[in-house]
Amino acid sequence: MKIALIGAGNLATRLGVALVAGGQSVVQVYSRTEASAAALGKTLHCPAVTSLEQVCRDADVYIVAVKDAAFSGVAASLVSGRSRALFVHTAGSLPMSVWEGVASRHGVFYPMQTFSKQREVDFSAIPIFIEANNAADLTLLKALASALSTQVYEADSRQRRALHLAAVFACNFTNHMYALCGHLLDEAGLPFEVMLPLIDETAAKVHELPPAEAQTGPAVRYDENVIARHLEALSAHPEWQDLYERISKSIHHDKLRFNPD
Amino acid sequence: MKIALIGAGNLATRLGVALVAGGQSVVQVYSRTEASAAALGKTLHCPAVTSLEQVCRDADVYIVAVKDAAFSGVAASLVSGRSRALFVHTAGSLPMSVWEGVASRHGVFYPMQTFSKQREVDFSAIPIFIEANNAADLTLLKALASALSTQVYEADSRQRRALHLAAVFACNFTNHMYALCGHLLDEAGLPFEVMLPLIDETAAKVHELPPAEAQTGPAVRYDENVIARHLEALSAHPEWQDLYERISKSIHHDKLRFNPD
Repeated sequence: MKIALIGAGNLATRLGVALVAGGQSVVQVYSRTEASAAALGKTLHCPAVTSLEQVCRDADVYIVAVKDAAFSGVAASLVSGRSRALFVHTAGSLPMSVWEGVASRHGVFYPMQTFSKQREVDFSAIPIFIEANNAADLTLLKALASALSTQVYEADSRQRRALHLAAVFACNFTNHMYALCGHLLDEAGLPFEVMLPLIDETAAKVHELPPAEAQTGPAVRYDENVIARHLEALSAHPEWQDLYERISKSIHHDKLRFNPD
Repeated sequence: MKIALIGAGNLATRLGVALVAGGQSVVQVYSRTEASAAALGKTLHCPAVTSLEQVCRDADVYIVAVKDAAFSGVAASLVSGRSRALFVHTAGSLPMSVWEGVASRHGVFYPMQTFSKQREVDFSAIPIFIEANNAADLTLLKALASALSTQVYEADSRQRRALHLAAVFACNFTNHMYALCGHLLDEAGLPFEVMLPLIDETAAKVHELPPAEAQTGPAVRYDENVIARHLEALSAHPEWQDLYERISKSIHHDKLRFNPD
């Protein structure tokens, strides 16, 4: 099976590396940015092109891993002249229906993880959510995903939208809590490293307990003394102060709603 | 050195277990709740009492691990008749000065971690922050902390207040992001487990990168299309929708402030 990779960002890079390591044949990469295309082509030992017209016409699967905003600009020109192939995108936030009227065989191949250029990730532990508009291609995507990961799930577009939204909370918003923590430590002349055991334990805990049950801290019991002291300590940062208050209230409401005792 | 443990909650329990495992002599535990006192006494193989008057008078160190709100009710009666001993509390949020005029030898012994009754924790990886009002007791606390943990730091009350506040973001607020994620997955009929690899990677990443640099997701680049779709998907939950919008804005402001490119 010949795979062409459309995109050369963080996700495309990690996915390409995992595909090649898994013995798959990545025949070409495309990025409109020459340096990115060249770098990924070099990494994957395959040709790199910077114009959609140069993309090969004989791949079996085209994996489109570009920014959501760039998708529609890429899709139509890509499919033209290659319409017998299977086309998939990798975006959690885009429904499968974006392919309707564009490509007759289409689907979604969504590896749910946070990718950085700086960091290797173990693809085998990444859940991959797949969807296709026909049974044969769903089987094909399942085989492709299973070659990369032990966690392969079918998910329809509604579920994938929920996954993507939930992942924003669990990953992006969590990381921002780490960032605000880091800024507060900076201001007190303390290194971020002191917080790592707590960060690790907080993540480890929800492997065993549902997060609503794992909740600790002043907000659960709405300890007004501690909360008032913290809000005062944040007075130089009105935006963080506002977040502190609102997240605390949400924790307290959650406790009343899901876990009263 | 004889240690009396005042309190039998999550922190007192884990600390007591670690002290005994580290060869320290815990001679008595106190809790006003009979069942808690008895349970911890049994765990630590030491007498348990439920009235402050019954607390032994010959301990060298009294470690007060009660809720912040209960502290002032406990401190004065505890010190009375035992005033030659060293008194410490374990609260990140209380300054050392709460002991002034109460106990002549005093300090703070703050293990920064999230403790649950249900979960064992490896105390040796927990940072312990110590403070004392005299050099000899600081040395004593340093020795005691070093018997439990490889990460022992001196921190004054101002720094400890910052640590406690920063920990609320890194632990309590992070856990709430996990909880909201879990609720959204529930609603879509998806198990929380699918999110664990992403949660683990998000935590692992900040061992290598400062969190502001590790930030990913629609809010960093303020992708209005994705954000609008997510806000719409949250329309049944106005409180979560409001948090989504405010945290996204804060991420974007952080990006502009700390990490522009």
